[in-house]
Amino acid sequence: MDYAIFDAGDVTLQSGATIRDCKLAYKTFGTLNAAADNAVVYPTWYSGQHYDNEWLVGSGRTLDPAKYFVIIPNMLGNGLSSSPSNTPEPYNAARFPKVTAYDNVRLQHRLVTEKFGIKKLPLVTGWSMGALQTFHWGALYPDMVERIAPFCGSAKCSRHNFVFLEGVKAALTADAAFNDGWYTTKPAKGLRAMARVYAGWGFSQAFYREELDLKTLGYSSLEDFLVAFWEGFFLPKDPNNLLTMLWTWQNGDISANELYHGDFKKALGAIKARAYVMPGKTDLYFPPEDSAFEVAHMPRAQLILVDSIWGHFAGGPGTNPVDCDFIDAKLAELLAS
Amino acid sequence: MDYAIFDAGDVTLQSGATIRDCKLAYKTFGTLNAAADNAVVYPTWYSGQHYDNEWLVGSGRTLDPAKYFVIIPNMLGNGLSSSPSNTPEPYNAARFPKVTAYDNVRLQHRLVTEKFGIKKLPLVTGWSMGALQTFHWGALYPDMVERIAPFCGSAKCSRHNFVFLEGVKAALTADAAFNDGWYTTKPAKGLRAMARVYAGWGFSQAFYREELDLKTLGYSSLEDFLVAFWEGFFLPKDPNNLLTMLWTWQNGDISANELYHGDFKKALGAIKARAYVMPGKTDLYFPPEDSAFEVAHMPRAQLILVDSIWGHFAGGPGTNPVDCDFIDAKLAELLAS
Repeated sequence: MDYAIFDAGDVTLQSGATIRDCKLAYKTFGTLNAAADNAVVYPTWYSGQHYDNEWLVGSGRTLDPAKYFVIIPNMLGNGLSSSPSNTPEPYNAARFPKVTAYDNVRLQHRLVTEKFGIKKLPLVTGWSMGALQTFHWGALYPDMVERIAPFCGSAKCSRHNFVFLEGVKAALTADAAFNDGWYTTKPAKGLRAMARVYAGWGFSQAFYREELDLKTLGYSSLEDFLVAFWEGFFLPKDPNNLLTMLWTWQNGDISANELYHGDFKKALGAIKARAYVMPGKTDLYFPPEDSAFEVAHMPRAQLILVDSIWGHFAGGPGTNPVDCDFIDAKLAELLAS
Repeated sequence: MDYAIFDAGDVTLQSGATIRDCKLAYKTFGTLNAAADNAVVYPTWYSGQHYDNEWLVGSGRTLDPAKYFVIIPNMLGNGLSSSPSNTPEPYNAARFPKVTAYDNVRLQHRLVTEKFGIKKLPLVTGWSMGALQTFHWGALYPDMVERIAPFCGSAKCSRHNFVFLEGVKAALTADAAFNDGWYTTKPAKGLRAMARVYAGWGFSQAFYREELDLKTLGYSSLEDFLVAFWEGFFLPKDPNNLLTMLWTWQNGDISANELYHGDFKKALGAIKARAYVMPGKTDLYFPPEDSAFEVAHMPRAQLILVDSIWGHFAGGPGTNPVDCDFIDAKLAELLAS
């Protein structure tokens, strides 16, 4: 095991459910300095685990462990932190409670403060649902978070994004083997269907037009890309875990809590952190227009467009080196400010 | 029955299969004049029937039956022309053969020439897969077709569009009740899943952002829109019919025939018709970039952007009056030229 567990005890969620003996799995890189002021929090994305975040961390990167103490907390439901797949009865499998991004970030805050005694965070950053959590850090802990760099994500799930996810969910759960979440064998047909639905959304029209699946990623045909990349991506994952995180995503909203009572503009306005909000130009479910709205209502934010035809994969998760280097450079710029 | 049937006899398809006693259902409006030079062909779209095309035909419209003889041919597989749902054994249901847009347009050409004795067509027009057939008319009968006005469609299914349709297909067929096409009860779960997948593609991000589903179309909530509009749209349709037309769409290509041998640019270049190619600005599966490529390789074509946030529903099928009026006006302009 290359990661650690924060035993959070009984964690009561926004929904009112309690995850008993709740586990937050995390991995750290580097060393927390004596002043405890060099930590960076870098949450995971939909279905990703900390391994999948490591492309942005290392010697030669902005998030160099020689300089920063990088904490990658695994999202609840991702199979390492408390999840449908690893929680004992009675809250196991399909009965695992609904978890919000707020719940995740509150738990991460406990890790950061209780375990590490950190009072200031020079940076929180993340891709996709990691960006959602990043925005939450900014809105929930405005006096603690000095900078945020959410990329290819949003502070609130848009209505269109919600609908896209409805399609993903419907495809997965259309498989009778899913059995309302009480599957005994893997609903492979549903996972493959979900993968094919996702395939059209993940990359842009231009990505497919330019055949980057073949020419850059090296797949042997479009069908090979659908099978090897997309089906291969989702098949190993637990369906209830995927649905838990999908619900978290669909219900993501930095203002859906006791601080902001659904006032989204107020929540955006409360983010004191200096922010680089970095959408991908051709991202089909986090379009730059939504980021522009967020930036317009944040006091110290700047819109940085990732000029890429890689769709949602502009900047994450290490798939396209050019965009990843761009993100990395922008993190350096932001941290230097 | 408000439509007519053209009995085409035994029709051999590109695939080599033969539809015996093949039926082409069509509806006409107006009267063919003595010179037989006032006919407009207006093919149907994915899952649509001639009823669904009638919004663009009528007194006060460019396609006024007092002036034009409008022929709406139903696509093979749409439930009125020969389809999985109405073809007797052994070519029924899941065994219905693969049909191309080329097969459809060749059959329509027989209707137009054999039944009506038409030698010149002042216009062929259509939305979506109707646009695909419109392009085919231009490429297969360049000396017969004087003008084409394909809107929100393409001359060849793009790779991204193909992937989007893979997701739709996978969602429908993930339902065990589908039973490889040999269903005995309707695979309603699969049809609903397909509808939810489609929902994110049919309208644009901005359409959902601006809540046009509620504010303009009058649905009571986003979920109501997904159920009443989208699930309600697909549930009455026959799954094998839907898959037949989906295959036609995915394999649409004006150059995939003995005239052009896959040379797409050559096929585009062979279209002699004066053309208005009209993509929707926010169409997620027929993006304007693909139309621009087509126009650049057609000798007499002009790109007319439908400046709309209605996504694929810019201009069809009568859903949004503003865009529909725009299309209508452009048809008048083209016909006057």
